[in-house]
Amino acid sequence: MDTKELDQNRRSFLRKSLAVAGGVAAGGTAGAAPLPVPSSAQEPGRQIEAAAYGMPSKFEAHVMRRRTDVLKNRQNLSDWSMTPLQHQPGIITPNGLVFERHHAGTPDIDPKTHRLVIHGMVKQPLQFTLDDLLRYPSVSRFHFHECSGNGLTDWLKPASTTVQQTHGLLSGVLWTGVPASTLLDEAGIDPRGKWVLFEGADSSGHARSVPMEKVLDDTLIVYAMNGEALRPENGYPVRVGIPGWEGNVSVKWLRRIKVGDEPWYLRSETARYTDPMPEGKWRKFSMVMECKSVITSPSGGQQLKGRGFREITGLAWSGAGKIRAVDVSVDGGRNWREATLEEPIMDKCLTRFKAAWNWDGAPAMLMSRAVDSNGYVQPTVQDIQKARAIAGFVQHHNGIQPWAISANGEVRNAIGQA
Amino acid sequence: MDTKELDQNRRSFLRKSLAVAGGVAAGGTAGAAPLPVPSSAQEPGRQIEAAAYGMPSKFEAHVMRRRTDVLKNRQNLSDWSMTPLQHQPGIITPNGLVFERHHAGTPDIDPKTHRLVIHGMVKQPLQFTLDDLLRYPSVSRFHFHECSGNGLTDWLKPASTTVQQTHGLLSGVLWTGVPASTLLDEAGIDPRGKWVLFEGADSSGHARSVPMEKVLDDTLIVYAMNGEALRPENGYPVRVGIPGWEGNVSVKWLRRIKVGDEPWYLRSETARYTDPMPEGKWRKFSMVMECKSVITSPSGGQQLKGRGFREITGLAWSGAGKIRAVDVSVDGGRNWREATLEEPIMDKCLTRFKAAWNWDGAPAMLMSRAVDSNGYVQPTVQDIQKARAIAGFVQHHNGIQPWAISANGEVRNAIGQA
Repeated sequence: MDTKELDQNRRSFLRKSLAVAGGVAAGGTAGAAPLPVPSSAQEPGRQIEAAAYGMPSKFEAHVMRRRTDVLKNRQNLSDWSMTPLQHQPGIITPNGLVFERHHAGTPDIDPKTHRLVIHGMVKQPLQFTLDDLLRYPSVSRFHFHECSGNGLTDWLKPASTTVQQTHGLLSGVLWTGVPASTLLDEAGIDPRGKWVLFEGADSSGHARSVPMEKVLDDTLIVYAMNGEALRPENGYPVRVGIPGWEGNVSVKWLRRIKVGDEPWYLRSETARYTDPMPEGKWRKFSMVMECKSVITSPSGGQQLKGRGFREITGLAWSGAGKIRAVDVSVDGGRNWREATLEEPIMDKCLTRFKAAWNWDGAPAMLMSRAVDSNGYVQPTVQDIQKARAIAGFVQHHNGIQPWAISANGEVRNAIGQA
Repeated sequence: MDTKELDQNRRSFLRKSLAVAGGVAAGGTAGAAPLPVPSSAQEPGRQIEAAAYGMPSKFEAHVMRRRTDVLKNRQNLSDWSMTPLQHQPGIITPNGLVFERHHAGTPDIDPKTHRLVIHGMVKQPLQFTLDDLLRYPSVSRFHFHECSGNGLTDWLKPASTTVQQTHGLLSGVLWTGVPASTLLDEAGIDPRGKWVLFEGADSSGHARSVPMEKVLDDTLIVYAMNGEALRPENGYPVRVGIPGWEGNVSVKWLRRIKVGDEPWYLRSETARYTDPMPEGKWRKFSMVMECKSVITSPSGGQQLKGRGFREITGLAWSGAGKIRAVDVSVDGGRNWREATLEEPIMDKCLTRFKAAWNWDGAPAMLMSRAVDSNGYVQPTVQDIQKARAIAGFVQHHNGIQPWAISANGEVRNAIGQA
């Protein structure tokens, strides 16, 4: 269905909804009584110097990154902040709102003194400045970026209120950088080299081991995000960008790439970023972020202002490919219908879905279920529990998120209750 | 050619370039002498509270919107600022850097009190709050947005130095809003209604007449840009978004939509935003932004640091469709070769092109020439002069932009000299 057909279908639906609702307008008020001339039309506005680098309106100050209320870190250095997905239309997150996760605060690195080294099992070790990297052929790609801990507070019962708190370790970005394969090709990979270490220049020395196959496939050495240099909290001046894999392997503030013949089994891949299984076992590496979706509107903490037409909309993504379909239910999963996916639908990228809905004022339970290009269907938490041990703060939560709507229009997190 | 083939071709080209240059690396330095541990790895970084809404690194303070040096406005209220295209990779402009043009400063409008009215030749006048608009089915689309005055200082000889000054009234945006057709459909269009007036709430009362056909085709009533609410200088809380047409018809701070049977012939469409023709005539409406391209790197004011490999890259766009091809010349237009276009290539949207280049150190003249999906080929200024009168500050400059490179690596604006 192309855009025009879609628009026509929507208009047609809207007319029907309005007819059902018996009113004139979904949102508009009939009549155009003479409006007072607003003050903005009576006096000049701000001069241009005020915004050499612009900022949001003062009336949007509530749209900000926030920490979860559930977990606080006493040290205040290993921390995170979450993207306000309930306020984000489309599939791109503005840089000021891209989620952040760090283990020892945000360093302010001077790009003039920063160096990136490639060494280990290579024919010729190499050293790069940022200016060096900028001379290489560049690639820009739209991707989702998600922390593997996204949702870890809300597995079996609601701990969080908003979609920012349940799913906000997720952002949509346009990464620009040099393919890692270009730089490794230049260094010359020793045939024994099967794993790659990426290490950051922050004081946690965060590092991860990544299989050479993924590094040569689509990994980028990233210096820009959404059309400008990386922000400090997102890895300035250079980071790794590993499409579709858990966020922490896309090491920020990158200073070292080492080629080896086996994984390094670092603390961040044994004590952290691994998942418990039944019988006390743990998964050895779980890099790919599974297919997932969430309704961002209506979502937890919002308040519906009366029955009638509204759009159900949300995001779907898969680390294993493209989104093929998203189903939506308004009755807790008894009935499902297919949502509309908005173009462009890109590989390992956020995809926006939409479904028209005419709320009749009765309690409802909204859910979404994504299917990716491999045919993988987003599971319920109960499905996940059949295979994995869910106890405590477990990573890789891609279960279906239900939002309960009360007769008074209140929208609540209903995880574990659908 | 898919991405992998492209990458392989580039790597192969890179190896050849390096062989020609006789060096080990395009950018990297051979050897990985033990690096000192940077200060960032020795002490904790900034805590997370510092960036509830993040900002660029302090080392990127030179990347900002700037006015042209050529024109200054004494009143300082009818003004513009330009996007630093030389620093923007990809096809999206961060909101803080999206170009600005206003006629009476930037108003700070409170969305709670703002109203949008539809009246004139409609069956039922309507009035909307921002909350009303947010209830309608929404659409998000990637588009370019360009002021019709882009380039007016540099037609026949160089007046400006950088691509920010010659082409920076151009940005790439993801607009989100309600199709104008949805709202007009609800108001009910009188069959006599063939034109639509859009009027802003700023104190210049900027307004334009737009044919109903375009309004019903793809015009959006926009409330968000690049994943968040519009910025004040870009029309907060609501503006028009008319894909592919000159920027000023996408009226900002929208407060009134009136349907009529003919254009209003406002000052902004008779005294301004029209183009001189030979024999003292003027074009009546020139809404569509013609197919155009520009090389953003290397570009004016930059300095090449030595011969060898570098990537020529830039942007192409057309208000009449998609970009089909971009040709690049390094010898002032004597020889051309086809650049690579980066996916996704979208309708009326910026398209990023790239061409590998091995600079031999001799003077060079770089040019790009775009072709759109209608087969329209971007003209030279000489071509444009055959049809139009170019004297003074004339709008709709889509001529080919040449950049001259001296033997010392200096890159200069060479308009009129190729």
